[in-house]
Amino acid sequence: MVNDEKLFKFNGKFIFIGFGSVGQGFLPLLFRHVEISPHQIRVIAADERGKAQAENFDIPFEVKPLNPENYRQVLDPLLAPGDFLLNVSVNVSSCALIEFCHARGVLYLDTCIEPWVGGYADANRSLSERSNYGLREEALRLREKLGNGPTAMLCHGVNPGLVSHWVKQALLNIANDVGICPQIPRTREQWAKLASLLKVAVIQCAERDTQVIDPPKKIDEFVNTWSIDGFVSEGIQPAELGWGSHEKQMPVDGRRHEYGCDASIYLTQPGVQTQVYGWTPREGSYRGFLITHSESISLANYLTVKEGGNISYRPTVYYAYHPCDAAVLSIHELNGKCLALQSKTRLAMDDIYDGVDELGVLLMGHAKGVYWYGSVLSIQAARKLAPCNNATSLQVAAGVLGGVVWALNNPRAGIVEPDEVPFDEVQKVAALYLGEMVGQYSDWTPLQGRGVLFEEDLDRSDPWQFKNFRVT
Amino acid sequence: MVNDEKLFKFNGKFIFIGFGSVGQGFLPLLFRHVEISPHQIRVIAADERGKAQAENFDIPFEVKPLNPENYRQVLDPLLAPGDFLLNVSVNVSSCALIEFCHARGVLYLDTCIEPWVGGYADANRSLSERSNYGLREEALRLREKLGNGPTAMLCHGVNPGLVSHWVKQALLNIANDVGICPQIPRTREQWAKLASLLKVAVIQCAERDTQVIDPPKKIDEFVNTWSIDGFVSEGIQPAELGWGSHEKQMPVDGRRHEYGCDASIYLTQPGVQTQVYGWTPREGSYRGFLITHSESISLANYLTVKEGGNISYRPTVYYAYHPCDAAVLSIHELNGKCLALQSKTRLAMDDIYDGVDELGVLLMGHAKGVYWYGSVLSIQAARKLAPCNNATSLQVAAGVLGGVVWALNNPRAGIVEPDEVPFDEVQKVAALYLGEMVGQYSDWTPLQGRGVLFEEDLDRSDPWQFKNFRVT
Ligand SMILES: NC(=O)c1ccc[n+]([C@@H]2O[C@H](COP(=O)([O-])OP(=O)(O)OC[C@H]3O[C@@H](n4cnc5c(N)ncnc54)[C@H](O)[C@@H]3O)[C@@H](O)[C@H]2O)c1
Ligand SMILES: NC(=O)c1ccc[n+]([C@@H]2O[C@H](COP(=O)([O-])OP(=O)(O)OC[C@H]3O[C@@H](n4cnc5c(N)ncnc54)[C@H](O)[C@@H]3O)[C@@H](O)[C@H]2O)c1
Repeated sequence: MVNDEKLFKFNGKFIFIGFGSVGQGFLPLLFRHVEISPHQIRVIAADERGKAQAENFDIPFEVKPLNPENYRQVLDPLLAPGDFLLNVSVNVSSCALIEFCHARGVLYLDTCIEPWVGGYADANRSLSERSNYGLREEALRLREKLGNGPTAMLCHGVNPGLVSHWVKQALLNIANDVGICPQIPRTREQWAKLASLLKVAVIQCAERDTQVIDPPKKIDEFVNTWSIDGFVSEGIQPAELGWGSHEKQMPVDGRRHEYGCDASIYLTQPGVQTQVYGWTPREGSYRGFLITHSESISLANYLTVKEGGNISYRPTVYYAYHPCDAAVLSIHELNGKCLALQSKTRLAMDDIYDGVDELGVLLMGHAKGVYWYGSVLSIQAARKLAPCNNATSLQVAAGVLGGVVWALNNPRAGIVEPDEVPFDEVQKVAALYLGEMVGQYSDWTPLQGRGVLFEEDLDRSDPWQFKNFRVT
Repeated sequence: MVNDEKLFKFNGKFIFIGFGSVGQGFLPLLFRHVEISPHQIRVIAADERGKAQAENFDIPFEVKPLNPENYRQVLDPLLAPGDFLLNVSVNVSSCALIEFCHARGVLYLDTCIEPWVGGYADANRSLSERSNYGLREEALRLREKLGNGPTAMLCHGVNPGLVSHWVKQALLNIANDVGICPQIPRTREQWAKLASLLKVAVIQCAERDTQVIDPPKKIDEFVNTWSIDGFVSEGIQPAELGWGSHEKQMPVDGRRHEYGCDASIYLTQPGVQTQVYGWTPREGSYRGFLITHSESISLANYLTVKEGGNISYRPTVYYAYHPCDAAVLSIHELNGKCLALQSKTRLAMDDIYDGVDELGVLLMGHAKGVYWYGSVLSIQAARKLAPCNNATSLQVAAGVLGGVVWALNNPRAGIVEPDEVPFDEVQKVAALYLGEMVGQYSDWTPLQGRGVLFEEDLDRSDPWQFKNFRVT
């Protein structure tokens, strides 16, 4: 039942920078939905992972780690106006590539705003400089500087990426279910107003990945269902969250950045050491990691309502990530070694024998309690939908497909964030690969079951205060 | 190479209360090292686990959960002076059984001071009442009341149990290695003096269990290598630790009991939610759970030096437990459900395919840094040594064997704690089943690798402060 409708006929060059789980997962989708032939495509990566797959498709594969010194030289001969640069690497500066593409009229998409290698773990840089807030502000300054130009989509995987669209769909669904039946908002202000009207206090990106592997995680091995480098990098960044207007109390270790949009705060500890209570339909309540993500900042900013220069509404937004069990153990081990990475890493793929990636947005505080909306994709379903993927990478690849197709159709949009593109149009394309899209209400709150055997410092007058979610 | 030397000829009745992992694991050792025949033995348990094994040995097995109302009635016909009651159950009050045995001249041993069912999870009782401190003080008051009598060994598994003996051996080893070459202490005061002389600031019971299972842990399943009930019960007790004289700062959530020996404090949170850095030779540094244990209190008390009524020396003592990976995941899930136990449980046994239980005492702060002394027992070695065991249960069974043999040889010792019996004599028996006994020094401290990417509130002037170990 795989749909193979062609969505665009592309004549330019299509360059992959990086060809790990996302790149490899996206390639079959590219062939299936874009009219393109192998000789138009080329892969540049830092290692040979995926080489055999690329060569099976007759796609040239070059091992050539990009760095601040060589990237122009490497890319210059490859790219001409109207070509596409897909950045699904780690350790390659998004801003550097965007500026490069802008100058040459090349379309661009990434799934994460990355710094050059080492940018996340440089103890000489301040926490703010190592934050996603800092990276995002850098990209926004670049947009300011560059102005109009070829489309460069920031952070358009699934999260960040599709989750921004799901939040909009969820807002509409809740509005309908409480009988508001609004017109579909057309501007940022209208979306923010709708969220405010519905009294959405908190938005979690709530993910429970139950994929399990055989053989299991070994000692001194970091296992994950997507990039180990990517996950560890963001996991050792400071925890960050969009900071809502309903929050009464700044966390003791909460800090504001002294510049930029000010939509979010950071904590003075890494995400892999910061846990919060979350909820998904299949799992119920769980403890997840508050890993920094671009959408926590951009969504909070996007949904802000200002009145007379003052912020009258903003939701708290953050990621509550329960990775697969092997990754939970990997984090536990990593924390036990004071964040020194394991000597072995494994990206789980064919060794996955069961499980589901349940990934959605959880909107809380409105009249109907909490509402989760997102993708429930099993490993079995993922394998039926596309080769070279697990459930996680396919959700990301779906987001990339949606973004790439939109960029191809809208090649002069300049630098855009997921929140700024038409949610329904992009989601429609992505939905081909998301398994079941589930919307579910619940009366769950983070106060449920809390403080029974041991007193906890909770705000029982308002379940949606961040302190009620945070594990201390 | 299994040694089957008979250590005692026993003519009385030998009653098992409880026949889970410890009971089943100990039975083959009992037959091997004590001259006893099946008709002398009898099992009383609350469920049929182990029934087939008992009946294979021609041992009567009765399912009869004991409770405060029925236990005299059930036990009265079974026990006469000189008989032995082995309490390796959960949910049966140790104090009730001890008083019963005392009155009848029956020998007694347990591996944990248990309350009647529900005693650990009764929100109406204070944290102090739910603590092991509280249970131990109750047992000590009973000793006060009963005075001399038949031997009743408290808490004589491996931890609590053998670890008390290992601390003594470790003190002697360190003393020799720093050139003190002391006489072997003969009294509590002398042991405490030796620990003080060596400046042992902290003693961890440092355990890393790497046993791995196939099939892996399922969703909504609690897996462990020994009693799930036992582990969850102690894990939801308040975290407790012997509180050393070098500690500068009471934890903000630290509380003293307002009665009894005052050797330990408790935290106002459960052990499964309290992590500390620990170290073992094979694992290196790790994060473990600070689960309350009787030895944390009894050892701290035993090693206290008082001068003129004031405490001049006491080590900080606690358990830093890294259970097997499946149990780490089980705890993570349990915490995510606010301590509501999973609907399925599994005691890993034949499903273990690899791994080692590395369990010892880590003495810190002396002239040679840290010294770990303990048992390194692999699943393979355990299986060679005895049937019906995994590495964990065999370490416990070894402690039970050492304790039972000592009690048989010393039947009128009254109520005794592990610290109060001859360490070398008991350890010699237990050592038959402990695999390799390893002693290893290291320059590890809990400051190693800490505070690099993120500032931490550490006391760099004294590595051995509890705040440096505790994960916040
Ligand atoms: N938004 C989302 O939903 C989402 C989800 C997953 C991953 N991501 C992001 O996507 C990116 C890729 O993830 P992945 O799972 O495919 O990662 P991966 O670790 O599997 O692969 C990374 C790739 O980058 C290449 N690479 C590393 N250094 C390079 C360099 N200097 N020059 C060129 N190539 C280099 C590697 O060779 C490899 O091919 C990461 O930034 C990750 O954070 C986003
Ligand atoms: N000191 C140590 O080193 C150490 C190590 C492991 C376990 N333990 C302790 O040993 C005890 C047993 O551990 P395990 O792993 O064998 O436990 P388990 O859960 O495997 O077995 C418990 C047994 O107790 C029985 N039981 C439960 N309720 C009962 C009742 N009301 N009356 C009679 N029997 C009852 C069960 O039927 C079962 O046979 C626990 O208290 C545990 O904390 C101590």
